Amino acid sequence: MPGSNFGTLFHISTFGESHGPALGVVIDGCPAGLALTEEDIIPYMNRRRPGQSQYTTARSESDTPEILSGTFNGVTTGAPIAILIRNTDQRSKDYSEIADIFRPGHADFTFFEKYGIRDYRGGGRSSARETAARVAAGAVAAKLLREFNIEAIAFTKSISDITVDDKFLDPMENRVRRDDVLKSPVFMPDSAAGERACAFLDKKREELDSTGGVVRIHVTGLPAGLGDTVFEKLDARLAGALMSIGAVKGVTIGDGFSVSLSTGSLDNDSFYADDDLNIHTTSNHGGGILGGMSTGGMIIAEAAFKPTPSIAKEQETVDKAGISRKISIKGRHDPTVVPRAVVVCECMVNLVIADALLTNATARLDNLHKIYRR
Amino acid sequence: MPGSNFGTLFHISTFGESHGPALGVVIDGCPAGLALTEEDIIPYMNRRRPGQSQYTTARSESDTPEILSGTFNGVTTGAPIAILIRNTDQRSKDYSEIADIFRPGHADFTFFEKYGIRDYRGGGRSSARETAARVAAGAVAAKLLREFNIEAIAFTKSISDITVDDKFLDPMENRVRRDDVLKSPVFMPDSAAGERACAFLDKKREELDSTGGVVRIHVTGLPAGLGDTVFEKLDARLAGALMSIGAVKGVTIGDGFSVSLSTGSLDNDSFYADDDLNIHTTSNHGGGILGGMSTGGMIIAEAAFKPTPSIAKEQETVDKAGISRKISIKGRHDPTVVPRAVVVCECMVNLVIADALLTNATARLDNLHKIYRR
Amino acid sequence: MPGSNFGTLFHISTFGESHGPALGVVIDGCPAGLALTEEDIIPYMNRRRPGQSQYTTARSESDTPEILSGTFNGVTTGAPIAILIRNTDQRSKDYSEIADIFRPGHADFTFFEKYGIRDYRGGGRSSARETAARVAAGAVAAKLLREFNIEAIAFTKSISDITVDDKFLDPMENRVRRDDVLKSPVFMPDSAAGERACAFLDKKREELDSTGGVVRIHVTGLPAGLGDTVFEKLDARLAGALMSIGAVKGVTIGDGFSVSLSTGSLDNDSFYADDDLNIHTTSNHGGGILGGMSTGGMIIAEAAFKPTPSIAKEQETVDKAGISRKISIKGRHDPTVVPRAVVVCECMVNLVIADALLTNATARLDNLHKIYRR
Amino acid sequence: MPGSNFGTLFHISTFGESHGPALGVVIDGCPAGLALTEEDIIPYMNRRRPGQSQYTTARSESDTPEILSGTFNGVTTGAPIAILIRNTDQRSKDYSEIADIFRPGHADFTFFEKYGIRDYRGGGRSSARETAARVAAGAVAAKLLREFNIEAIAFTKSISDITVDDKFLDPMENRVRRDDVLKSPVFMPDSAAGERACAFLDKKREELDSTGGVVRIHVTGLPAGLGDTVFEKLDARLAGALMSIGAVKGVTIGDGFSVSLSTGSLDNDSFYADDDLNIHTTSNHGGGILGGMSTGGMIIAEAAFKPTPSIAKEQETVDKAGISRKISIKGRHDPTVVPRAVVVCECMVNLVIADALLTNATARLDNLHKIYRR
Repeated sequence: MPGSNFGTLFHISTFGESHGPALGVVIDGCPAGLALTEEDIIPYMNRRRPGQSQYTTARSESDTPEILSGTFNGVTTGAPIAILIRNTDQRSKDYSEIADIFRPGHADFTFFEKYGIRDYRGGGRSSARETAARVAAGAVAAKLLREFNIEAIAFTKSISDITVDDKFLDPMENRVRRDDVLKSPVFMPDSAAGERACAFLDKKREELDSTGGVVRIHVTGLPAGLGDTVFEKLDARLAGALMSIGAVKGVTIGDGFSVSLSTGSLDNDSFYADDDLNIHTTSNHGGGILGGMSTGGMIIAEAAFKPTPSIAKEQETVDKAGISRKISIKGRHDPTVVPRAVVVCECMVNLVIADALLTNATARLDNLHKIYRR
Repeated sequence: MPGSNFGTLFHISTFGESHGPALGVVIDGCPAGLALTEEDIIPYMNRRRPGQSQYTTARSESDTPEILSGTFNGVTTGAPIAILIRNTDQRSKDYSEIADIFRPGHADFTFFEKYGIRDYRGGGRSSARETAARVAAGAVAAKLLREFNIEAIAFTKSISDITVDDKFLDPMENRVRRDDVLKSPVFMPDSAAGERACAFLDKKREELDSTGGVVRIHVTGLPAGLGDTVFEKLDARLAGALMSIGAVKGVTIGDGFSVSLSTGSLDNDSFYADDDLNIHTTSNHGGGILGGMSTGGMIIAEAAFKPTPSIAKEQETVDKAGISRKISIKGRHDPTVVPRAVVVCECMVNLVIADALLTNATARLDNLHKIYRR
Repeated sequence: MPGSNFGTLFHISTFGESHGPALGVVIDGCPAGLALTEEDIIPYMNRRRPGQSQYTTARSESDTPEILSGTFNGVTTGAPIAILIRNTDQRSKDYSEIADIFRPGHADFTFFEKYGIRDYRGGGRSSARETAARVAAGAVAAKLLREFNIEAIAFTKSISDITVDDKFLDPMENRVRRDDVLKSPVFMPDSAAGERACAFLDKKREELDSTGGVVRIHVTGLPAGLGDTVFEKLDARLAGALMSIGAVKGVTIGDGFSVSLSTGSLDNDSFYADDDLNIHTTSNHGGGILGGMSTGGMIIAEAAFKPTPSIAKEQETVDKAGISRKISIKGRHDPTVVPRAVVVCECMVNLVIADALLTNATARLDNLHKIYRR
Repeated sequence: MPGSNFGTLFHISTFGESHGPALGVVIDGCPAGLALTEEDIIPYMNRRRPGQSQYTTARSESDTPEILSGTFNGVTTGAPIAILIRNTDQRSKDYSEIADIFRPGHADFTFFEKYGIRDYRGGGRSSARETAARVAAGAVAAKLLREFNIEAIAFTKSISDITVDDKFLDPMENRVRRDDVLKSPVFMPDSAAGERACAFLDKKREELDSTGGVVRIHVTGLPAGLGDTVFEKLDARLAGALMSIGAVKGVTIGDGFSVSLSTGSLDNDSFYADDDLNIHTTSNHGGGILGGMSTGGMIIAEAAFKPTPSIAKEQETVDKAGISRKISIKGRHDPTVVPRAVVVCECMVNLVIADALLTNATARLDNLHKIYRR
């Protein structure tokens, strides 16, 4: 499947460059009968929109999504749902300086090597702006998941070494409130940590430098058994989805890399049955996934983001001809990509879970009998 | 695509349970004209075979692969390559004890929830034995990559907190020799660390417990530009592939989670041109991938494995009816899954790279002109 | 793959309803480096545009395609190419009459049964207007094929029992000129037959009735060996592609159904070598495809179209409640769908051939060596 | 998706050459909980087995399928179902005569052009023997469909111009009994026509020649709404599936090519409601499919087969070097492929319908609510 397609049954196809006329997505496979309007999408677009706080870029992107197809009287019809986001800030800038130069930490060089041509205006297809289409699609997935009381909440776990309080990381209980996340300029549920992070970011900006961080995602409400046993394990899909976001260099599920230091007797999550004989785990080192399938417990995933590669500090590089050049990236850039990436992570997780919900529907013959023998 | 299928053009479909008659894989999409016999596959099978050292299970699996199709006179024909591996150790054991019990840390519960039925003999489809088919396929991918001087080497980076010397982790130069890896009972290129790891594993076994570790993979020889810009980023594919291996809970590319603590000025890999005006990076924090595409530098990936869930220590759990049960897993189990997982990681990486090599072939019109206008 | 997606490497995802804001397509997988602007697409759009002659609907659709992404300075970049076609003729009509009634010969009933909801305005997603997106994509595929001197020409072979002269159907030589096709109001290369067809259509319209016909497609310039041996045979792909066009009820390759009456000694196309030792067939009963792969000869395919289901004549039907209703379809409808379907057939063939051209690129190891070892 | 893969959710991957060690198929996506043993498959294998009557080849193929995975205690587990069919008749023959010669009407030339290498023993991957794997998979699909009272019956409609009586072709009622089909040596439900066909085939054999014919398939029991609206229309999938069978040159649905001669008022199938207000059509020109989705009426499809290309009569051809050669195919060949192709057609239809049944499960939100909200 070509590279801008994602998902088996809840399938999306995205398009658009940073400085082209528009970005967008076609969602093919969303079940018919779901109430859906632009109002469901706009709050998600707003969360990734730059210029929301002083820690995100000042470029004004109104990012108004337009649903072009797939709904009728505000309800999905089963036809593909196309969502269009016009680029409104395309004033013709002078890109001659970066047209031939490969910016360190950016895809300029690798894109040019692959395709032999490069839309250098703002990074083209490799711009973070590409994620606007993911967010629009993820908002639709979220609406579908809400029908089944499934909800993903992403938040900033850390900016550099400033990390939210441990209580927000309890794997057995989701103590993260969406409201607390949204009111933080860096999307940390812990306001004290958030303040420290803001101060740190101010410092990085003054230093003409940038920093990284970690986004964490909690998913609650999943039935047990979503996912698959081999290549399409739920954690494999989540890892691929999160790693596909620009600047992510690491992905974990549950306890992540620390499991390598643990022991079987500590790491295994024991089972118990509640009074209704529903089975749960007594701990959640596994992050809600066992053997590639959901346990019914909270899903926990993390993604590590590298520092924003666009920095004002002068850097060494080369141009297309291989001539040494110095570059300092002009303009007002985010000292970290993390806050804007939070909603992107949440949306990628929504897409994976929605797809798993659909593909799981035919796992059992008795499910089919529920549908076809009424 | 159903869950036991993997790859776009170098496509595999695997099958087989731990205690069924056989496992195997069908590879569809391997180019015609590649020399291939069972001799190319056997060394890979041997590397994942249990009973290789005292740190891996004693079960005797001869794991002899049989090529059933797709080659003629020792050369691939373009037809699907089916590889069969008979299970030779299926003596009828008494599985009645675990037939109804959900082992902690295993897929017993989630598989049963998903499918409503479970082949409990040795874990069925969720057994690590499933990876034999991946290894057979990965060996074929390796043979293809060798045609282009591309090679992946996986090794044990750490067992619990025992880690190989830093020199083996230099991101700018692959100091890991395959011979050194293969002669270590735990597949560590650093013999001193390997000895400490063996002593640690002995101790864990005496404690009836287990431990985890980290596998690292280096890939050399890649041309720049393999991969894709959005969902099919090379790192996204690698992350999904590695996370799809049982017991993996974390995956990184390049500097991994430590990038979250870095700064843009430190983390960005600068470009320079060599005397032939070929462009390289002066450092390799990115692990050979930028914007989802290979830079031409060494690819570096890591996967964190949780401790073997099968431990002799008594554990709490429940049975299908929700009744509390105690379980201590009988038999001789590996105190860590890491050594046997090394070749599995290498093979999954081979599969991803081989697929990227093929899908990249049509990225540019001039590539097509090389093929179609002679 | 969900139902509005098509193609493996030259992959398209279409969207849009008859009376929604817009239709469009995202092409993912078109090689970088192809010159492409809206001017390449417009002539194709014009050919399917209604109101072109008195035998096609009067609805005014300007069908101006807008390329939203994937090109830079008039050349494809390897990024997805999104093409948008706004619906300009959406005056709010009174659809209350057909909102609850299932039109005979239309998808109203089956769509409602499948999805439980129906955008009844002009047929919604099941409208022939959906094919505008296919045509836009097929125009891009045609541009790609032209790079390799491959060209598909579709034309009307027959309207009811009025058929073009046999000379246009010679399987060994393509005697159909694009100019002759385009200047015919019914897209028949035979002007005499075209005139008879026009007279017949006038009569059908007077009778408030409609008629069917056959579209034939010739493809020249293909190298031998495109296609595949089993499920993705070139003829299988063509058959699926043509049958996916609304109103098609039969598809043939080469001599089609008449082969069932032939003998092996007559039907087998013998081989001979020309002076340059290039191998050809002495006849072309097979329509340029043998064992699912192109022979290098002219590809010949046909598609049979049923009469336009929208007729002014009164018909019996039922509404959603199962109540008997009479219906006579209002408005000015085409007495046959064939002329407008000609370009749609051509474009579907272009899409299949373009995809086969790309997927074939990795069939042989020596092809890969041409790309990766320079 | 590479060429030996088929299906979206009921996905199969086949392998095997005519004279290799084995053929087989991996079915990934069959729901768990279906009773399945080799006994379900054997009758289908027997129907395509050669040597069944004097009109099919004498080669002895026992074609015993072995289920290697995916079932436990005779029930599917949701894991991939691999079915192996060993080739038992691989005596080493002298193929030197055809090793370098391109047989007319066979894939020898095109396969060689595509892959640059050819397993010439018995046609290799392009042998009709490949269909054994399709039949094994189709038998499993049939077992699944039977759970929902859906049944496909294929039969020989005609051998050359000898056609079964019209009563067997009534589109409103399936008058074809499986028993009648199976007891005919040419699988015609009309014993009188069958006798004439046998006499005709004897004559063709005496003439060292061969003939073609038409296979027709009836599917009953389908719910309305299976299929899709655009590229994955049910008829498009059927057309692609049938055309992918070797020697098929034409495919129709319902009235097929004769619709091109009809009128809208005759061709449209009117709707009526029965006493329970279930909606049906009063006629069935459309062959049970409208707008790409099933109407709930009987599905009717036909496939036209060309004469067996292997004939004893001498033919002109060339060898690899382009040198003119004469060839008369040795051995005892079927004077027609039609009887053995009947079960192959039925099985391909089963695969398409089973896949449509699964993919349709998530078309509506209310279907999902039946599964996930208990």
